Amino acid sequence: MTRDKEKKTSLTDIASLGEFGLIDHLTKGIRHFHPETLMGVGDDAAVIDCGPLVTILTKDLLVEGVHFDIVYTPLKHLGYKAIVVNLSDIYAMNALPKQVFAGIAVSRRYSLEAVEELYAGMMLACEKYKVDLAGGDTTTSPSGLFLSITATGQAEKEQVVYRSGASPMDLLFVSGDLGAAYCGQLVLQREKQAYKANPDVQPDMGNYAYILERQLKPEARRDIIELLHQAGVKPTAMIDVSDGLASEILHICKRSGVGATIYEEKIPVDQRMAQTAHEFNIDPTTCALSGGEDYELLFSINQKDYDKIKDVKTIHPIGHVTEASQGANMFTSSGQLIKLTAQGWDPFGKKER
Amino acid sequence: MTRDKEKKTSLTDIASLGEFGLIDHLTKGIRHFHPETLMGVGDDAAVIDCGPLVTILTKDLLVEGVHFDIVYTPLKHLGYKAIVVNLSDIYAMNALPKQVFAGIAVSRRYSLEAVEELYAGMMLACEKYKVDLAGGDTTTSPSGLFLSITATGQAEKEQVVYRSGASPMDLLFVSGDLGAAYCGQLVLQREKQAYKANPDVQPDMGNYAYILERQLKPEARRDIIELLHQAGVKPTAMIDVSDGLASEILHICKRSGVGATIYEEKIPVDQRMAQTAHEFNIDPTTCALSGGEDYELLFSINQKDYDKIKDVKTIHPIGHVTEASQGANMFTSSGQLIKLTAQGWDPFGKKER
Repeated sequence: MTRDKEKKTSLTDIASLGEFGLIDHLTKGIRHFHPETLMGVGDDAAVIDCGPLVTILTKDLLVEGVHFDIVYTPLKHLGYKAIVVNLSDIYAMNALPKQVFAGIAVSRRYSLEAVEELYAGMMLACEKYKVDLAGGDTTTSPSGLFLSITATGQAEKEQVVYRSGASPMDLLFVSGDLGAAYCGQLVLQREKQAYKANPDVQPDMGNYAYILERQLKPEARRDIIELLHQAGVKPTAMIDVSDGLASEILHICKRSGVGATIYEEKIPVDQRMAQTAHEFNIDPTTCALSGGEDYELLFSINQKDYDKIKDVKTIHPIGHVTEASQGANMFTSSGQLIKLTAQGWDPFGKKER
Repeated sequence: MTRDKEKKTSLTDIASLGEFGLIDHLTKGIRHFHPETLMGVGDDAAVIDCGPLVTILTKDLLVEGVHFDIVYTPLKHLGYKAIVVNLSDIYAMNALPKQVFAGIAVSRRYSLEAVEELYAGMMLACEKYKVDLAGGDTTTSPSGLFLSITATGQAEKEQVVYRSGASPMDLLFVSGDLGAAYCGQLVLQREKQAYKANPDVQPDMGNYAYILERQLKPEARRDIIELLHQAGVKPTAMIDVSDGLASEILHICKRSGVGATIYEEKIPVDQRMAQTAHEFNIDPTTCALSGGEDYELLFSINQKDYDKIKDVKTIHPIGHVTEASQGANMFTSSGQLIKLTAQGWDPFGKKER
């Protein structure tokens, strides 16, 4: 009748594997029955063959106390962000999102009005990105708020870009700027502590508007997908930057069987992020490499396509793809070559941040 | 900085709306941008146009302490059931499931081995029903286990069966037998209490094998979909029985704009369920109408199709569709006509069970 397996001491702590280790471990025995399953576990999204078109599908869980802190996350922003981060995965496949499905589990602590606010944020994202909120599931939770979003998209089969297509000599680009979302979180955490110490002090967040927006209300880079399409450039590999630049580069290297070299001075950082990073005594490059939640796009292109996009202001060449034997490295501004390691965000907390 | 909206006393308790009320309320403003979204909120699953075929998509959240009690739910069974209940939604659209996507949030209380057991159950269901576990998301939770499953399927567009197609004079059928899963849960809850009182007493569950299996390891009725296909019968409306027969009949009535009359003596109940219901001083019919989690199929057919399936042993005619003005009613075995009300399972606990 009773089953206390999780309490035995000889069992393995999940944290010892980390998020990607756990997923690799659990999914290694999976076999597919259907030829329509063109891509399962292992990319930004799954790809399902539907004839001339493919359906792209991704899903994400957002858990209170793990992915967001309800004290400083307005519910409308949370709803918006929950949709956007899934759309970002669809764009990262070079596809256009079409439908989203929202699963919500809320504790009794949340009123109807709170759930409405969450929904309003989701609907706002749906309006902005022109996707259909086409279903879901709403239920109760014993404690906390859980969001489970599924997004679907479409693409022509030969237009889909996987993580696995990068080749040596390809150029690596990243959109926008990196590290700001992480700095925004640092500010919010600091203000939460200050508020706990003295609730009467109202913080002035005005100076942090940009980095806070990057944390609380990120956008998915539909514009980059459109721009590449218009320029006639199909990336050889692409991924969205959700766990930090280093982690995403390592994903492309692993899936494509390649190495990569990037240049610290080429990594796009916003001055407002750099200033805040210094306030916290953190190197801005560390924020860009390991911060995560930027939802920018990292992609590789064949060198022959360089001229087609070299004048675009919103994307930045940061390095190139190499042979696998060279590993993934960064030339620092001071001329050192350092190995990139996955210091991205890990919900199982294997490492310190 | 701080936001305490959910604590204000003038706000609305979610429980006052109930699950379906909440979903109706939240989704009433939804508009679709894409003609491919053939069906969004409002049926067992969403339907997405992909050319000659349609993609069917459904998702479900399963929450520890709400949908399952980890004390008496073996994790392997839980994984199996989590997949099966989603496949059941795909079959209820008269489609064949193809892919599933699993989102799992687990607290530190769960070991890797526990999550492996859960995965083993999911994989077993995937093997049995020949579906591809094609993606997902694994993360941590501050407390408890949350499962979010998305399932996709395919069908020819004109073969999809919605809840909305029933017409007066159609016949209502249900597969298998009803109420056993609920009785299984009653037994498990009773034994949990007995175990708490005296952990040394090992319960003898042998007599309850059938109803326990119905609760812990339900199956989806692929066989019924195949059988109807072979008989050349396309139901006019269909739904799976997850919340109890009464609730599902009311869903079909609402979506189809019809009424329904069913006959108590025609409702299929298993003798082992009836015996247990009597032990608990509950009417077996109440278990069938309101118990839920049977994952049988309720469907309506045009009378002209009756001869094609009248000899099938695994489906049972229970009544017929009427004009909407007549409402949804049941003739009891003692000859009374009573109104059917949705006493199905409600995670927000509006009503007593």
